[in-house]
Amino acid sequence: MKKLINDPKHVVDEAVAGFAAAHADIVRASTDPVYVVRTDAPQAGKVGIVSGGGSGHEPLHAGFVGYGMLDAAVPGAVFTSPTPDPIVAATKAVDGGAGVLHIVKNYTGDVLNFETAAELAAADGVEVRSMIVNDDVAVQDSLYTAGRRGVAGTVLVEKIAGAAAQRGDSLDEVTAVAERVNANVRSMGVALTPCVVPHAGEPSFTLAEDEIEIGIGIHGEPGREKIKLESADLIVERLLGPIIDDVPFSSGDQVLLLVNGMGGTPQVELYIAYRHAAEVLRGKGIDVVRSLVGNYTTSLEMQGMSLSVLKLDSELTELWDAPVQTAALRWGR
Amino acid sequence: MKKLINDPKHVVDEAVAGFAAAHADIVRASTDPVYVVRTDAPQAGKVGIVSGGGSGHEPLHAGFVGYGMLDAAVPGAVFTSPTPDPIVAATKAVDGGAGVLHIVKNYTGDVLNFETAAELAAADGVEVRSMIVNDDVAVQDSLYTAGRRGVAGTVLVEKIAGAAAQRGDSLDEVTAVAERVNANVRSMGVALTPCVVPHAGEPSFTLAEDEIEIGIGIHGEPGREKIKLESADLIVERLLGPIIDDVPFSSGDQVLLLVNGMGGTPQVELYIAYRHAAEVLRGKGIDVVRSLVGNYTTSLEMQGMSLSVLKLDSELTELWDAPVQTAALRWGR
Repeated sequence: MKKLINDPKHVVDEAVAGFAAAHADIVRASTDPVYVVRTDAPQAGKVGIVSGGGSGHEPLHAGFVGYGMLDAAVPGAVFTSPTPDPIVAATKAVDGGAGVLHIVKNYTGDVLNFETAAELAAADGVEVRSMIVNDDVAVQDSLYTAGRRGVAGTVLVEKIAGAAAQRGDSLDEVTAVAERVNANVRSMGVALTPCVVPHAGEPSFTLAEDEIEIGIGIHGEPGREKIKLESADLIVERLLGPIIDDVPFSSGDQVLLLVNGMGGTPQVELYIAYRHAAEVLRGKGIDVVRSLVGNYTTSLEMQGMSLSVLKLDSELTELWDAPVQTAALRWGR
Repeated sequence: MKKLINDPKHVVDEAVAGFAAAHADIVRASTDPVYVVRTDAPQAGKVGIVSGGGSGHEPLHAGFVGYGMLDAAVPGAVFTSPTPDPIVAATKAVDGGAGVLHIVKNYTGDVLNFETAAELAAADGVEVRSMIVNDDVAVQDSLYTAGRRGVAGTVLVEKIAGAAAQRGDSLDEVTAVAERVNANVRSMGVALTPCVVPHAGEPSFTLAEDEIEIGIGIHGEPGREKIKLESADLIVERLLGPIIDDVPFSSGDQVLLLVNGMGGTPQVELYIAYRHAAEVLRGKGIDVVRSLVGNYTTSLEMQGMSLSVLKLDSELTELWDAPVQTAALRWGR
């Protein structure tokens, strides 16, 4: 498999260095241990927000570090949780005295390492809260997860909690907002092709030439079923059904619809999916009032997408609309 | 080959409909003929800017319609120039009395169809200027082009000319700025994998498992040479050399560096390339003062990237930094 890399061992280091160089107006990188942090951290009196996880899902999480969103991101090796050490360092680097929230996707490695880091940081006097994102309705337990997986809904949690922290909410309030987003967002994905972890050098799973996987995880973990390729509209309906039934979403709801590319999907395909997803929701009386379409939580070069639907209320909408200035999401500044 | 589509014949229609629905705050779509236009067009007294070309390069061009950039974009079928009819309609839709600039990538079909459209619009009383983008240093003539091809540098032309139009420059002034960007930007690309045009259903060219193509065009047109896969750093040097020698760029120059993904390249790989490209430029005394990294001029799901370097001066920098609000580029608003 062909990749635009140097040594597979240095993929993350070099990507982080390039990222920090390209976005030096927004972030700086620490190299030992590795994390990415707002240039203006810590902000005195502001709650800090740290997220992280295995690399390979970019722009998640480093692409969301900046004004109005994350204060720091901790990238592990590709598809591998970061160890506690850089998480502790990032936590201390963003503590402005108002405490720090850890936003953690529900993978066993991430949960354990963030838990250990939170204890270590607390022992050093930082007040830490943690919340777990588990928005994926596809499967109950999974290859790397007890309970539901955290997937693209994480971006919405990070944006909205980040806006709450930026306006000056307390640690308890920011944590509550993050939990509220998680409680109201559901996601499900599909893969058309597998992805290739650089140091493995071969596809992380296989799909036949006419086969897709419904409910795929963002590391290629098994989903609900492998089926024959079908039309985009039918695939959209397969993903939206379980999402709508779960919260449940119902007529009169106002929602944000995220069509997330897995990394290798052409934009035209994401918009074809958006078109029908919005149609299906409208048909059920569910009003799409905010949208996000693009590569936000990827699985390297995987072709496929996920749909996420978040039930909005006036406060969540206001926080979504609030100014943000990161490498991957930017408006109002 | 697997694609997330319905009928190959409706890829563009459905994608445009989805795009307009997702970004209804910024654009609306005309369906017959097909074009995408700012919701607030025409702007009285402002020069209108129209671009377009074959689909499959998204976000180019519709993703750049909005405040401070394009007034309208005209998408043809995938990798196929739009006909004059929608170009004329889009031109009239954005004419606020100050004339309209056509920004045209140098492909024979685009050049001819925009030329005809300009004549027809002029016959109907719209003052039209045209400028041709030809930033690709890879080859002199190509499969669909006499002279150099227009590639990712087009994004920089559109952003900077768009800012000039937005601040109230005249048609002559906006055209001159666009020409100045084109004169100062050079690009070159590489493909690791081919792309698949939906209605063709098979790869537009072939590359062996260990082979890449240096100087590839954005439709998979032949480049300079097929070589064995090598390290990202060596590939970056192969692309940057001809770019630097061409303008030429020299010590003391301040530049914008664009690392453009071709659609299927993981973000970590783009940042690995950015890191070394910035290093090489710095080593020559060329100062990277602005950056853009991501999928901006794609070739469907092609894996690969292009590098573009634009020599800045204080006016071009100011216009680059000016507020923009489009689906794909947004800051300052």
